[in-house]
Amino acid sequence: MDQQLHFVTVATRDLDAARSFYSGLGWSPALDVPEEIIFYQVAPGLLLGLFRSDKFAQDVGLDAAPGPSGMTLSHNVGSPDEVRRLVARMADAGGTVLKEPRDGSFGGIFHALVRDPNDVVWEIAFNPGWRIDDDGAVIIG
Amino acid sequence: MDQQLHFVTVATRDLDAARSFYSGLGWSPALDVPEEIIFYQVAPGLLLGLFRSDKFAQDVGLDAAPGPSGMTLSHNVGSPDEVRRLVARMADAGGTVLKEPRDGSFGGIFHALVRDPNDVVWEIAFNPGWRIDDDGAVIIG
Repeated sequence: MDQQLHFVTVATRDLDAARSFYSGLGWSPALDVPEEIIFYQVAPGLLLGLFRSDKFAQDVGLDAAPGPSGMTLSHNVGSPDEVRRLVARMADAGGTVLKEPRDGSFGGIFHALVRDPNDVVWEIAFNPGWRIDDDGAVIIG
Repeated sequence: MDQQLHFVTVATRDLDAARSFYSGLGWSPALDVPEEIIFYQVAPGLLLGLFRSDKFAQDVGLDAAPGPSGMTLSHNVGSPDEVRRLVARMADAGGTVLKEPRDGSFGGIFHALVRDPNDVVWEIAFNPGWRIDDDGAVIIG
């Protein structure tokens, strides 16, 4: 199995709220099928799919889809100040700050948690022990 | 906000079972911190982090972490036969087949669902309306 993820699909209660939130962050969809699913490209070869909850449930064979839980998505930025600025922008766009920007418990990380309008939890972080090489390889340690 | 995901982090009950399952699929970790977290690079610039449930809960400020739900990860392959072969391999490696390989409800998709040992649900799919360009752009429609 190639070590490659092609889609992350999340059960989404309110697609309109999702669309408004992510467009407020400057994101553009790769494909937007109203009342069904919105795809955003979030890495080379990878789409994040926000799939309306009832259709998600049907697709995976459940009666009802729980909101996303047990999972976080992370976006790294270049400095603690950038963490603060992005978190403020996400709150303006309709996000809920779950953890205000602060030092993490290890590795010099500075981070915050913001919930999107459909319970997707984003970690926004500055992590000095992490970087991406020119070829896309992630260095972490 | 750059439209880029850097980590997908999943609450993981049993890291040993996870390690065994993904190594059985031929995956190699970018970093493996025993009793804490295993990172796999799954796209340019993107790590999948399997984070021990109790530490995940602590990190997001919960008393206990639920298993992952309301979310699926997808891996696309080149033909229906490749779907069948990969699903069989995932079952051998310790996965649970939730939906046997079959035609999807739209777009000529042929797919299956397999749960990893910690309740992460993988969709394995052949999707003729999807491809990745040389520059990493995803074409879907």
